[in-house]
Amino acid sequence: MSQQRHGSTPGNAGAVPAFPDLPEATIARLPEYLRALHHLAETGADTISSEGLAAAAGVNSAKLRKDLSHLGSYGTRGVGYDVALLVDQIEYILGLDQRRAVCLVGVGNLGHALAGYAGFASRGFRIVALFDADPARVGEQINGLTVRHFDELPRVAAAEALAIGVIATPANAAQAVADGLVAAGVTSILNFAPCVLSVPPGVDVRKVDLAIELQILSFHEHRKASLTALPGGRENAGGQEAVGS
Amino acid sequence: MSQQRHGSTPGNAGAVPAFPDLPEATIARLPEYLRALHHLAETGADTISSEGLAAAAGVNSAKLRKDLSHLGSYGTRGVGYDVALLVDQIEYILGLDQRRAVCLVGVGNLGHALAGYAGFASRGFRIVALFDADPARVGEQINGLTVRHFDELPRVAAAEALAIGVIATPANAAQAVADGLVAAGVTSILNFAPCVLSVPPGVDVRKVDLAIELQILSFHEHRKASLTALPGGRENAGGQEAVGS
Repeated sequence: MSQQRHGSTPGNAGAVPAFPDLPEATIARLPEYLRALHHLAETGADTISSEGLAAAAGVNSAKLRKDLSHLGSYGTRGVGYDVALLVDQIEYILGLDQRRAVCLVGVGNLGHALAGYAGFASRGFRIVALFDADPARVGEQINGLTVRHFDELPRVAAAEALAIGVIATPANAAQAVADGLVAAGVTSILNFAPCVLSVPPGVDVRKVDLAIELQILSFHEHRKASLTALPGGRENAGGQEAVGS
Repeated sequence: MSQQRHGSTPGNAGAVPAFPDLPEATIARLPEYLRALHHLAETGADTISSEGLAAAAGVNSAKLRKDLSHLGSYGTRGVGYDVALLVDQIEYILGLDQRRAVCLVGVGNLGHALAGYAGFASRGFRIVALFDADPARVGEQINGLTVRHFDELPRVAAAEALAIGVIATPANAAQAVADGLVAAGVTSILNFAPCVLSVPPGVDVRKVDLAIELQILSFHEHRKASLTALPGGRENAGGQEAVGS
């Protein structure tokens, strides 16, 4: 079995560094593997073949083996991967052993739903603070948390070691919120506002734009319709398109 | 100006086909360009340089020029791109001139928020139907629409020419919902449930998993912390990571 807990000393030729430099697409697939592995663990599986795990995660098995080789995990021929060990390795790489503190800014329609989303807690995160700039919303209780005024962010950030800020404000407020988060020491931002944020080096931003996802599907609808309309038109073999891949 | 309305005859060597075969990453960026162009049009701009548009969309300008060249748009040296024409071209390619009908299945916490999200309507889509399997939710009014039982899907799909189905159910219900959507003739699915859907060829699925986005940010937090901790550790130059790129 060539799965190792955290790899070996950084910089050693031929060894897996303590913190591997992973392709962005691999990083985006690790959470999918983790979700599938947790599900397998719940069903009592101790080991899983690369084909089985690939199918459960919706990727092809060659890609999966390559992704996991970046972590120093090659499985065992004829046996596959040790489920518990691989969970441990991926959670370590993703830093999920830390249960990072998340704050959410903007408790309108979407922010309200995000604040109540059980999936954050079950998958390694603690939402510790909710903020809004609207005095009418300050003091509101959502899922056991009290909405605070955004002016309180610096104090809360210091007290709670906030790691990730989620922006669910309208687009015209998002840059100011991002600036406030960065000033308060937050270095990762998940942005739901439909706009591009400008942040200094060292701050990571991920963006989820729900209308863009529909527009991409609209493209595929349009493409499929044009293929059907052409002489000899063929249907495309569609399938899963994971966000971030 | 070498921007053309829809390109020319398909299959002609050297010509832009009526429906270009675009890289997936280009498709995912076109909505970003469109959003930036709409914003520019609102501010009264008639033309925009590739650098200006690239900055507004948060990509580098070489990538933008390459993306737009796939559409047959090269702009004019010293002038840039015609904003109105480029809006027209991108909306055509994305099929947004059709105002596609969208249904939403699952009106829990997240589904409720999505049903009320104004960004869908303003960016080319009509939410025409809401479904849930819970009889207690059927009949509820959300944003002017009445929640119907999922059993009514086939009838509604036929009447409304549903193009896109949005799944906002728990993970354990999502596959059955996807099967129902496909059986009703829906060929594009946006899946918010944290699971992998299996669909036949010709059906496109996009997936938005909010916890995965946080897990990717957690990776970057972990990576940054490990760089800081190493002797000679450096901060990574972070920045925008658009979903789907």
